Amino acid sequence: MKEKRLILVTNDDGIQAPGLKALVEVVSEFGNVVVVAPIESQSGMSHAITTKQPLRISVREDSPALKAYAVKGTPVDCVKLAMNQLLSRKPDLLVSGINHGSNASVSVVYSGTMGAAIEGGINQIKSIGFSLLDYSRDADFSAAKIYTKKIISQVLLNGLERGICLNVNIPVGKMHEIRGIKICRQTDGYWQEEYDKRKDPYNRDYYWLTGYFNNFEPEAEDTDEWALKNSYVSIVPIQTDFTSHEQLSILKQWNI
Amino acid sequence: MKEKRLILVTNDDGIQAPGLKALVEVVSEFGNVVVVAPIESQSGMSHAITTKQPLRISVREDSPALKAYAVKGTPVDCVKLAMNQLLSRKPDLLVSGINHGSNASVSVVYSGTMGAAIEGGINQIKSIGFSLLDYSRDADFSAAKIYTKKIISQVLLNGLERGICLNVNIPVGKMHEIRGIKICRQTDGYWQEEYDKRKDPYNRDYYWLTGYFNNFEPEAEDTDEWALKNSYVSIVPIQTDFTSHEQLSILKQWNI
Repeated sequence: MKEKRLILVTNDDGIQAPGLKALVEVVSEFGNVVVVAPIESQSGMSHAITTKQPLRISVREDSPALKAYAVKGTPVDCVKLAMNQLLSRKPDLLVSGINHGSNASVSVVYSGTMGAAIEGGINQIKSIGFSLLDYSRDADFSAAKIYTKKIISQVLLNGLERGICLNVNIPVGKMHEIRGIKICRQTDGYWQEEYDKRKDPYNRDYYWLTGYFNNFEPEAEDTDEWALKNSYVSIVPIQTDFTSHEQLSILKQWNI
Repeated sequence: MKEKRLILVTNDDGIQAPGLKALVEVVSEFGNVVVVAPIESQSGMSHAITTKQPLRISVREDSPALKAYAVKGTPVDCVKLAMNQLLSRKPDLLVSGINHGSNASVSVVYSGTMGAAIEGGINQIKSIGFSLLDYSRDADFSAAKIYTKKIISQVLLNGLERGICLNVNIPVGKMHEIRGIKICRQTDGYWQEEYDKRKDPYNRDYYWLTGYFNNFEPEAEDTDEWALKNSYVSIVPIQTDFTSHEQLSILKQWNI
Protein backbone atom coordinates (compact mmCIF):
# COMPACT_ATOMS: atom_id res chain seq x y z
CA MET A 1 0.00 0.00 0.00
CA LYS A 2 1.28 3.42 -0.91
CA GLU A 3 2.18 5.61 2.06
CA LYS A 4 -0.14 8.57 2.49
CA ARG A 5 1.25 11.99 1.68
CA LEU A 6 2.61 14.06 4.58
CA ILE A 7 1.53 17.69 4.47
CA LEU A 8 2.90 20.47 6.67
CA VAL A 9 0.60 23.43 7.30
CA THR A 10 1.60 26.72 8.87
CA ASN A 11 0.62 30.40 8.76
CA ASP A 12 1.41 33.79 10.26
CA ASP A 13 -2.01 34.70 11.65
CA GLY A 14 -1.65 32.13 14.42
CA ILE A 15 -3.00 28.66 15.07
CA GLN A 16 -6.51 29.97 15.90
CA ALA A 17 -6.98 31.80 12.57
CA PRO A 18 -10.01 30.82 10.43
CA GLY A 19 -7.77 30.90 7.32
CA LEU A 20 -5.64 28.09 8.77
CA LYS A 21 -8.76 26.03 9.47
CA ALA A 22 -9.90 26.52 5.86
CA LEU A 23 -6.51 25.38 4.57
CA VAL A 24 -6.47 22.29 6.81
CA GLU A 25 -9.90 21.34 5.45
CA VAL A 26 -8.55 21.51 1.89
CA VAL A 27 -5.30 19.62 2.43
CA SER A 28 -6.91 16.86 4.51
CA GLU A 29 -8.12 15.43 1.19
CA PHE A 30 -4.52 15.05 0.02
CA GLY A 31 -2.88 13.22 2.91
CA ASN A 32 -2.00 13.24 6.60
CA VAL A 33 -1.74 16.74 7.96
CA VAL A 34 0.64 18.19 10.53
CA VAL A 35 -0.03 21.77 11.59
CA VAL A 36 2.89 23.63 13.15
CA ALA A 37 1.81 27.23 13.57
CA PRO A 38 2.56 30.22 15.79
CA ILE A 39 0.57 30.56 19.02
CA GLU A 40 -0.02 34.24 18.25
CA SER A 41 -0.25 36.41 15.15
CA GLN A 42 3.13 36.87 13.46
CA SER A 43 2.04 39.19 10.66
CA GLY A 44 4.89 41.16 9.13
CA MET A 45 7.51 38.82 10.60
CA SER A 46 8.96 38.06 7.15
CA HIS A 47 11.74 35.49 7.34
CA ALA A 48 12.59 36.21 11.01
CA ILE A 49 14.03 33.43 13.17
CA THR A 50 14.24 33.30 16.96
CA THR A 51 17.79 33.08 18.26
CA LYS A 52 17.71 35.03 21.51
CA GLN A 53 15.01 33.01 23.23
CA PRO A 54 14.43 29.28 23.22
CA LEU A 55 11.32 27.95 21.49
CA ARG A 56 8.47 26.08 23.13
CA ILE A 57 5.91 23.76 21.58
CA SER A 58 2.45 22.76 22.81
CA VAL A 59 0.45 19.87 21.36
CA ARG A 60 -3.09 20.79 20.25
CA GLU A 61 -4.21 17.74 18.23
CA ASP A 62 -2.75 14.25 18.07
CA SER A 63 -4.57 11.83 15.78
CA PRO A 64 -3.08 9.81 12.86
CA ALA A 65 -4.72 12.04 10.24
CA LEU A 66 -4.20 15.38 11.99
CA LYS A 67 -1.54 16.54 14.38
CA ALA A 68 -1.29 20.16 15.48
CA TYR A 69 1.44 21.98 17.40
CA ALA A 70 1.49 25.60 18.56
CA VAL A 71 4.91 27.27 18.68
CA LYS A 72 5.88 30.39 20.57
CA GLY A 73 7.93 31.68 17.64
CA THR A 74 7.85 32.93 14.06
CA PRO A 75 6.45 31.16 10.97
CA VAL A 76 10.00 30.26 9.86
CA ASP A 77 10.72 28.86 13.35
CA CYS A 78 7.63 26.66 12.86
CA VAL A 79 8.96 25.26 9.57
CA LYS A 80 12.43 24.63 11.01
CA LEU A 81 11.07 22.96 14.16
CA ALA A 82 8.69 20.84 12.07
CA MET A 83 11.50 19.65 9.80
CA ASN A 84 13.93 18.95 12.60
CA GLN A 85 11.82 17.87 15.60
CA LEU A 86 8.18 17.20 14.83
CA LEU A 87 7.88 15.41 11.47
CA SER A 88 8.81 11.79 11.01
CA ARG A 89 10.12 12.54 7.49
CA LYS A 90 10.41 15.34 4.95
CA PRO A 91 6.88 16.48 4.00
CA ASP A 92 5.55 16.07 0.46
CA LEU A 93 4.03 19.53 0.56
CA LEU A 94 4.17 22.67 2.68
CA VAL A 95 1.26 25.11 2.60
CA SER A 96 1.12 28.41 4.47
CA GLY A 97 -2.03 30.46 5.10
CA ILE A 98 -4.67 31.06 4.08
CA ASN A 99 -3.52 34.52 5.07
CA HIS A 100 -6.09 37.12 6.04
CA GLY A 101 -4.97 39.89 3.65
CA SER A 102 -2.92 40.36 0.47
CA ASN A 103 0.69 39.32 0.06
CA ALA A 104 0.95 40.44 -3.56
CA SER A 105 3.76 42.51 -5.05
CA VAL A 106 6.48 43.63 -2.62
CA SER A 107 4.42 42.46 0.39
CA VAL A 108 6.08 39.08 -0.23
CA VAL A 109 9.18 40.60 1.40
CA TYR A 110 7.42 41.47 4.69
CA SER A 111 5.03 38.54 4.88
CA GLY A 112 5.36 35.84 7.52
CA THR A 113 3.07 33.62 5.44
CA MET A 114 5.52 33.84 2.56
CA GLY A 115 8.53 33.64 4.92
CA ALA A 116 7.36 30.13 5.81
CA ALA A 117 6.75 29.18 2.16
CA ILE A 118 10.18 30.51 1.14
CA GLU A 119 11.76 28.50 3.97
CA GLY A 120 10.03 25.43 2.56
CA GLY A 121 11.52 26.20 -0.85
CA ILE A 122 14.99 26.59 0.66
CA ASN A 123 14.53 23.16 2.25
CA GLN A 124 13.53 21.64 -1.10
CA ILE A 125 9.91 21.05 -0.18
CA LYS A 126 7.13 21.86 -2.66
CA SER A 127 5.75 24.97 -0.94
CA ILE A 128 2.86 27.36 -1.50
CA GLY A 129 1.71 30.46 0.37
CA PHE A 130 -1.99 31.33 0.04
CA SER A 131 -3.53 34.71 0.85
CA LEU A 132 -7.09 36.02 0.56
CA LEU A 133 -7.52 39.76 0.03
CA ASP A 134 -9.72 40.13 3.10
CA TYR A 135 -8.25 41.16 6.45
CA SER A 136 -11.38 40.46 8.47
CA ARG A 137 -11.58 37.53 10.83
CA ASP A 138 -14.94 36.42 9.39
CA ALA A 139 -13.68 36.43 5.78
CA ASP A 140 -15.47 34.08 3.36
CA PHE A 141 -12.99 31.37 2.34
CA SER A 142 -15.39 29.34 0.17
CA ALA A 143 -14.02 30.35 -3.26
CA ALA A 144 -10.47 30.48 -1.88
CA LYS A 145 -10.77 26.83 -0.82
CA ILE A 146 -11.77 25.73 -4.33
CA TYR A 147 -8.81 27.51 -5.92
CA THR A 148 -6.47 26.31 -3.19
CA LYS A 149 -7.44 22.71 -3.93
CA LYS A 150 -6.97 23.19 -7.67
CA ILE A 151 -3.52 24.74 -7.30
CA ILE A 152 -2.32 22.11 -4.79
CA SER A 153 -3.40 19.34 -7.20
CA GLN A 154 -1.36 20.92 -9.97
CA VAL A 155 1.73 21.37 -7.79
CA LEU A 156 1.56 17.75 -6.62
CA LEU A 157 1.19 16.66 -10.25
CA ASN A 158 3.87 18.83 -11.85
CA GLY A 159 6.26 19.58 -9.00
CA LEU A 160 8.30 22.76 -8.66
CA GLU A 161 11.93 23.51 -9.52
CA ARG A 162 14.34 23.24 -6.57
CA GLY A 163 14.24 26.30 -4.31
CA ILE A 164 11.02 27.69 -5.79
CA CYS A 165 7.76 28.32 -3.94
CA LEU A 166 4.48 29.86 -5.11
CA ASN A 167 2.88 33.08 -3.89
CA VAL A 168 -0.87 32.69 -4.47
CA ASN A 169 -3.26 35.59 -3.85
CA ILE A 170 -7.01 35.27 -4.14
CA PRO A 171 -9.41 38.16 -4.72
CA VAL A 172 -12.52 38.64 -2.61
CA GLY A 173 -15.65 37.26 -4.20
CA LYS A 174 -17.93 34.32 -4.81
CA MET A 175 -16.85 31.59 -7.25
CA HIS A 176 -18.79 33.13 -10.17
CA GLU A 177 -17.16 36.52 -9.57
CA ILE A 178 -13.59 35.19 -9.87
CA ARG A 179 -12.44 34.96 -13.48
CA GLY A 180 -9.80 32.23 -13.13
CA ILE A 181 -6.06 31.94 -12.49
CA LYS A 182 -3.24 34.06 -13.91
CA ILE A 183 0.46 33.17 -13.79
CA CYS A 184 2.16 36.48 -12.98
CA ARG A 185 5.38 38.22 -12.10
CA GLN A 186 5.75 40.26 -8.89
CA THR A 187 4.46 43.82 -9.39
CA ASP A 188 7.10 46.54 -9.12
CA GLY A 189 5.96 48.78 -6.25
CA TYR A 190 6.56 49.76 -2.65
CA TRP A 191 4.80 50.70 0.57
CA GLN A 192 4.77 54.40 1.32
CA GLU A 193 4.87 54.79 5.09
CA GLU A 194 2.79 57.24 7.03
CA TYR A 195 3.38 56.84 10.74
CA ASP A 196 0.56 57.76 13.05
CA LYS A 197 2.33 59.77 15.76
CA ARG A 198 0.59 59.82 19.13
CA LYS A 199 1.28 60.84 22.72
CA ASP A 200 0.90 58.42 25.61
CA PRO A 201 -0.70 59.53 28.94
CA TYR A 202 2.82 60.51 30.11
CA ASN A 203 3.30 62.85 27.12
CA ARG A 204 5.82 60.55 25.42
CA ASP A 205 5.66 60.07 21.63
CA TYR A 206 4.89 56.74 20.05
CA TYR A 207 4.39 55.73 16.43
CA TRP A 208 2.06 53.29 14.69
CA LEU A 209 3.06 52.01 11.27
CA THR A 210 0.49 52.72 8.57
CA GLY A 211 0.91 53.27 4.83
CA TYR A 212 -0.36 52.69 1.34
CA PHE A 213 0.90 50.78 -1.67
CA ASN A 214 2.47 52.57 -4.63
CA ASN A 215 2.30 50.63 -7.89
CA PHE A 216 4.95 51.62 -10.47
CA GLU A 217 3.16 49.72 -13.23
CA PRO A 218 -0.62 49.66 -12.70
CA GLU A 219 -1.25 48.93 -16.39
CA ALA A 220 1.08 45.89 -16.64
CA GLU A 221 -1.20 42.94 -17.35
CA ASP A 222 1.42 40.31 -16.46
CA THR A 223 1.66 41.44 -12.80
CA ASP A 224 -0.06 40.07 -9.72
CA GLU A 225 -1.63 43.40 -8.72
CA TRP A 226 -3.25 43.70 -12.17
CA ALA A 227 -4.59 40.14 -11.98
CA LEU A 228 -6.12 40.70 -8.54
CA LYS A 229 -7.64 44.04 -9.52
CA ASN A 230 -9.27 42.27 -12.46
CA SER A 231 -10.69 39.46 -10.28
CA TYR A 232 -8.15 36.77 -11.14
CA VAL A 233 -6.30 34.54 -8.69
CA SER A 234 -2.58 35.38 -9.07
CA ILE A 235 0.31 32.90 -8.87
CA VAL A 236 3.86 34.27 -8.71
CA PRO A 237 6.74 31.77 -8.58
CA ILE A 238 9.28 32.96 -5.98
CA GLN A 239 12.99 32.15 -5.87
CA THR A 240 15.50 32.44 -3.05
CA ASP A 241 18.48 33.41 -5.17
CA PHE A 242 18.24 37.17 -4.68
CA THR A 243 21.21 37.92 -6.98
CA SER A 244 20.55 40.66 -9.52
CA HIS A 245 22.37 39.33 -12.57
CA GLU A 246 21.74 42.60 -14.40
CA GLN A 247 23.51 44.65 -11.72
CA LEU A 248 26.19 41.94 -11.48
CA SER A 249 27.22 42.57 -15.09
CA ILE A 250 27.35 46.32 -14.40
CA LEU A 251 29.45 45.89 -11.24
CA LYS A 252 32.02 43.93 -13.19
CA GLN A 253 32.73 47.07 -15.23
CA TRP A 254 33.48 49.11 -12.09
CA ASN A 255 37.05 50.02 -11.19
CA ILE A 256 36.94 48.22 -7.85
CA MET B 1 27.90 75.78 -1.81
CA LYS B 2 26.96 72.18 -2.46
CA GLU B 3 24.82 70.60 0.22
CA LYS B 4 26.59 67.89 2.17
CA ARG B 5 25.51 64.32 1.57
CA LEU B 6 22.99 62.82 3.98
CA ILE B 7 23.85 59.29 5.06
CA LEU B 8 21.57 56.95 6.99
CA VAL B 9 23.27 54.28 9.10
CA THR B 10 21.56 51.33 10.72
CA ASN B 11 22.32 47.75 11.76
CA ASP B 12 20.84 44.70 13.45
CA ASP B 13 23.32 44.23 16.28
CA GLY B 14 21.93 47.28 18.08
CA ILE B 15 23.04 50.87 18.53
CA GLN B 16 25.82 49.91 20.99
CA ALA B 17 27.58 47.49 18.62
CA PRO B 18 31.26 48.14 17.81
CA GLY B 19 30.51 47.35 14.13
CA LEU B 20 28.10 50.30 13.95
CA LYS B 21 30.72 52.59 15.47
CA ALA B 22 33.26 51.45 12.85
CA LEU B 23 30.77 52.16 10.05
CA VAL B 24 29.92 55.62 11.40
CA GLU B 25 33.65 56.45 11.46
CA VAL B 26 33.92 55.50 7.78
CA VAL B 27 30.83 57.31 6.50
CA SER B 28 31.52 60.50 8.46
CA GLU B 29 34.09 61.29 5.76
CA PHE B 30 31.34 61.26 3.13
CA GLY B 31 28.69 63.57 4.64
CA ASN B 32 26.35 64.23 7.54
CA VAL B 33 25.39 61.07 9.34
CA VAL B 34 22.09 60.06 10.90
CA VAL B 35 22.10 56.80 12.83
CA VAL B 36 18.71 55.14 13.36
CA ALA B 37 19.38 51.75 14.90
CA PRO B 38 17.63 49.23 17.15
CA ILE B 39 18.06 49.62 20.92
CA GLU B 40 18.76 45.89 21.21
CA SER B 41 20.17 43.15 19.00
CA GLN B 42 17.80 42.23 16.16
CA SER B 43 19.87 39.44 14.60
CA GLY B 44 17.84 37.08 12.44
CA MET B 45 14.95 39.56 12.18
CA SER B 46 15.11 39.54 8.37
CA HIS B 47 12.62 42.00 6.86
CA ALA B 48 10.28 41.98 9.88
CA ILE B 49 8.19 45.05 10.64
CA THR B 50 6.41 45.92 13.88
CA THR B 51 2.66 46.23 13.49
CA LYS B 52 1.28 44.96 16.79
CA GLN B 53 3.07 47.40 19.07
CA PRO B 54 3.77 51.08 18.55
CA LEU B 55 7.38 52.18 18.05
CA ARG B 56 9.36 54.47 20.33
CA ILE B 57 12.43 56.55 19.58
CA SER B 58 15.09 57.92 21.92
CA VAL B 59 17.66 60.55 20.91
CA ARG B 60 21.28 59.59 21.57
CA GLU B 61 23.28 62.23 19.64
CA ASP B 62 22.17 65.54 18.20
CA SER B 63 24.90 67.55 16.45
CA PRO B 64 24.83 68.87 12.85
CA ALA B 65 27.33 66.24 11.65
CA LEU B 66 25.99 63.30 13.67
CA LYS B 67 22.52 62.51 14.89
CA ALA B 68 21.68 59.19 16.47
CA TYR B 69 18.33 57.67 17.39
CA ALA B 70 17.64 54.36 19.11
CA VAL B 71 14.41 52.58 18.13
CA LYS B 72 12.60 49.85 20.01
CA GLY B 73 11.93 47.92 16.81
CA THR B 74 13.45 46.00 13.92
CA PRO B 75 16.08 47.18 11.43
CA VAL B 76 13.37 47.67 8.77
CA ASP B 77 11.32 49.71 11.27
CA CYS B 78 14.42 51.91 11.70
CA VAL B 79 14.66 52.57 7.95
CA LYS B 80 10.93 53.30 7.65
CA LEU B 81 10.91 55.63 10.68
CA ALA B 82 14.03 57.40 9.41
CA MET B 83 12.51 57.99 5.99
CA ASN B 84 9.15 59.11 7.30
CA GLN B 85 9.85 60.86 10.62
CA LEU B 86 13.50 61.53 11.34
CA LEU B 87 15.26 62.62 8.14
CA SER B 88 14.77 66.06 6.61
CA ARG B 89 15.04 64.56 3.11
CA LYS B 90 15.72 61.30 1.27
CA PRO B 91 19.25 60.15 2.14
CA ASP B 92 21.97 59.90 -0.52
CA LEU B 93 23.16 56.61 0.90
CA LEU B 94 22.00 53.94 3.36
CA VAL B 95 24.57 51.68 5.00
CA SER B 96 23.78 48.83 7.37
CA GLY B 97 26.27 47.09 9.62
CA ILE B 98 29.06 46.42 9.99
CA ASN B 99 27.45 43.16 11.06
CA HIS B 100 29.26 40.91 13.53
CA GLY B 101 29.13 37.68 11.49
CA SER B 102 28.60 36.51 7.92
CA ASN B 103 25.54 37.28 5.81
CA ALA B 104 26.78 35.45 2.72
CA SER B 105 24.77 32.99 0.64
CA VAL B 106 21.23 32.27 1.87
CA SER B 107 21.87 34.10 5.16
CA VAL B 108 20.79 37.22 3.25
CA VAL B 109 17.23 35.91 3.68
CA TYR B 110 17.40 35.78 7.51
CA SER B 111 19.62 38.81 8.10
CA GLY B 112 18.32 41.96 9.77
CA THR B 113 21.37 43.82 8.44
CA MET B 114 20.35 42.93 4.91
CA GLY B 115 16.64 43.46 5.69
CA ALA B 116 17.47 47.13 6.27
CA ALA B 117 19.60 47.35 3.11
CA ILE B 118 16.88 45.69 1.02
CA GLU B 119 14.33 48.15 2.47
CA GLY B 120 16.62 50.96 1.33
CA GLY B 121 16.68 49.46 -2.16
CA ILE B 122 12.89 49.21 -2.21
CA ASN B 123 12.78 52.92 -1.30
CA GLN B 124 15.16 53.78 -4.14
CA ILE B 125 18.09 54.71 -1.92
CA LYS B 126 21.60 53.53 -2.78
CA SER B 127 21.99 50.90 -0.05
CA ILE B 128 24.75 48.58 1.14
CA GLY B 129 24.87 45.98 3.91
CA PHE B 130 28.32 45.22 5.34
CA SER B 131 29.24 42.14 7.37
CA LEU B 132 32.52 40.97 8.87
CA LEU B 133 32.98 37.21 9.33
CA ASP B 134 33.67 37.56 13.04
CA TYR B 135 30.87 37.16 15.60
CA SER B 136 32.91 38.39 18.56
CA ARG B 137 32.21 41.73 20.13
CA ASP B 138 35.91 42.69 20.07
CA ALA B 139 36.29 41.89 16.34
CA ASP B 140 39.04 43.80 14.48
CA PHE B 141 37.33 46.14 12.00
CA SER B 142 40.50 47.81 10.67
CA ALA B 143 40.67 46.07 7.27
CA ALA B 144 36.87 46.05 7.02
CA LYS B 145 36.85 49.85 7.36
CA ILE B 146 39.27 50.28 4.47
CA TYR B 147 37.17 48.08 2.16
CA THR B 148 33.95 49.69 3.36
CA LYS B 149 35.30 53.11 2.40
CA LYS B 150 36.42 51.89 -1.01
CA ILE B 151 33.08 50.28 -1.83
CA ILE B 152 31.05 53.29 -0.65
CA SER B 153 33.17 55.58 -2.89
CA GLN B 154 32.41 53.39 -5.89
CA VAL B 155 28.67 53.23 -5.14
CA LEU B 156 28.48 57.03 -4.77
CA LEU B 157 30.39 57.40 -8.06
CA ASN B 158 28.55 54.83 -10.14
CA GLY B 159 25.15 54.55 -8.48
CA LEU B 160 23.03 51.42 -8.42
CA GLU B 161 20.06 50.35 -10.54
CA ARG B 162 16.67 51.10 -9.00
CA GLY B 163 15.66 48.54 -6.34
CA ILE B 164 19.15 47.04 -6.02
CA CYS B 165 21.31 46.94 -2.88
CA LEU B 166 24.68 45.33 -2.24
CA ASN B 167 25.48 42.50 0.16
CA VAL B 168 29.14 42.94 1.15
CA ASN B 169 30.91 40.33 3.26
CA ILE B 170 34.46 40.76 4.54
CA PRO B 171 36.75 37.92 5.60
CA VAL B 172 38.66 38.01 8.87
CA GLY B 173 42.23 39.19 8.49
CA LYS B 174 44.69 42.05 8.33
CA MET B 175 44.86 44.17 5.16
CA HIS B 176 47.77 42.19 3.70
CA GLU B 177 45.89 38.91 4.23
CA ILE B 178 42.83 40.00 2.20
CA ARG B 179 43.33 39.44 -1.51
CA GLY B 180 40.91 42.07 -2.86
CA ILE B 181 37.26 42.31 -3.92
CA LYS B 182 35.20 39.83 -5.95
CA ILE B 183 31.84 40.55 -7.57
CA CYS B 184 29.80 37.40 -6.91
CA ARG B 185 26.46 35.73 -7.13
CA GLN B 186 24.67 34.35 -4.04
CA THR B 187 25.89 30.83 -3.24
CA ASP B 188 23.27 28.09 -3.57
CA GLY B 189 23.01 26.52 -0.11
CA TYR B 190 20.91 26.26 3.02
CA TRP B 191 21.11 26.05 6.80
CA GLN B 192 20.65 22.58 8.22
CA GLU B 193 18.93 22.95 11.57
CA GLU B 194 19.87 21.02 14.65
CA TYR B 195 17.81 22.11 17.62
CA ASP B 196 19.35 21.79 21.03
CA LYS B 197 16.51 20.28 23.07
CA ARG B 198 16.68 20.96 26.83
CA LYS B 199 14.48 20.64 29.91
CA ASP B 200 13.74 23.58 32.17
CA PRO B 201 13.72 23.21 35.99
CA TYR B 202 9.99 22.34 35.75
CA ASN B 203 10.71 19.45 33.34
CA ARG B 204 9.24 21.25 30.32
CA ASP B 205 11.02 20.97 26.95
CA TYR B 206 12.52 23.97 25.22
CA TYR B 207 14.55 24.27 22.00
CA TRP B 208 17.50 26.43 20.97
CA LEU B 209 18.09 26.97 17.26
CA THR B 210 21.53 25.86 16.10
CA GLY B 211 22.70 24.55 12.73
CA TYR B 212 25.34 24.47 10.05
CA PHE B 213 25.57 25.69 6.48
CA ASN B 214 25.31 23.28 3.54
CA ASN B 215 26.93 24.55 0.36
CA PHE B 216 25.56 22.95 -2.84
CA GLU B 217 28.42 24.33 -4.93
CA PRO B 218 31.63 24.68 -2.88
CA GLU B 219 33.79 24.69 -6.03
CA ALA B 220 31.92 27.51 -7.83
CA GLU B 221 34.43 30.37 -8.09
CA ASP B 222 31.78 32.99 -8.92
CA THR B 223 29.97 32.60 -5.55
CA ASP B 224 30.30 34.64 -2.38
CA GLU B 225 31.16 31.63 -0.18
CA TRP B 226 34.07 30.74 -2.49
CA ALA B 227 35.35 34.32 -2.46
CA LEU B 228 35.27 34.52 1.34
CA LYS B 229 36.91 31.12 1.78
CA ASN B 230 39.69 32.35 -0.50
CA SER B 231 40.19 35.59 1.47
CA TYR B 232 38.36 37.94 -0.89
CA VAL B 233 35.76 40.53 0.06
CA SER B 234 32.50 39.47 -1.68
CA ILE B 235 29.92 41.80 -3.21
CA VAL B 236 26.57 40.33 -4.27
CA PRO B 237 24.01 42.67 -5.87
CA ILE B 238 20.57 41.91 -4.41
CA GLN B 239 17.21 42.56 -6.03
CA THR B 240 13.73 42.74 -4.54
CA ASP B 241 11.88 41.23 -7.46
CA PHE B 242 11.73 37.65 -6.18
CA THR B 243 9.96 36.33 -9.32
CA SER B 244 11.50 33.17 -10.74
CA HIS B 245 11.20 33.79 -14.47
CA GLU B 246 12.39 30.25 -15.17
CA GLN B 247 9.57 28.70 -13.14
CA LEU B 248 7.15 31.28 -14.59
CA SER B 249 7.70 29.90 -18.11
CA ILE B 250 7.15 26.37 -16.80
CA LEU B 251 3.93 27.33 -14.97
CA LYS B 252 2.50 28.75 -18.17
CA GLN B 253 2.58 25.23 -19.64
CA TRP B 254 0.49 23.83 -16.77
CA ASN B 255 -3.16 22.95 -17.31
CA ILE B 256 -4.40 25.37 -14.65
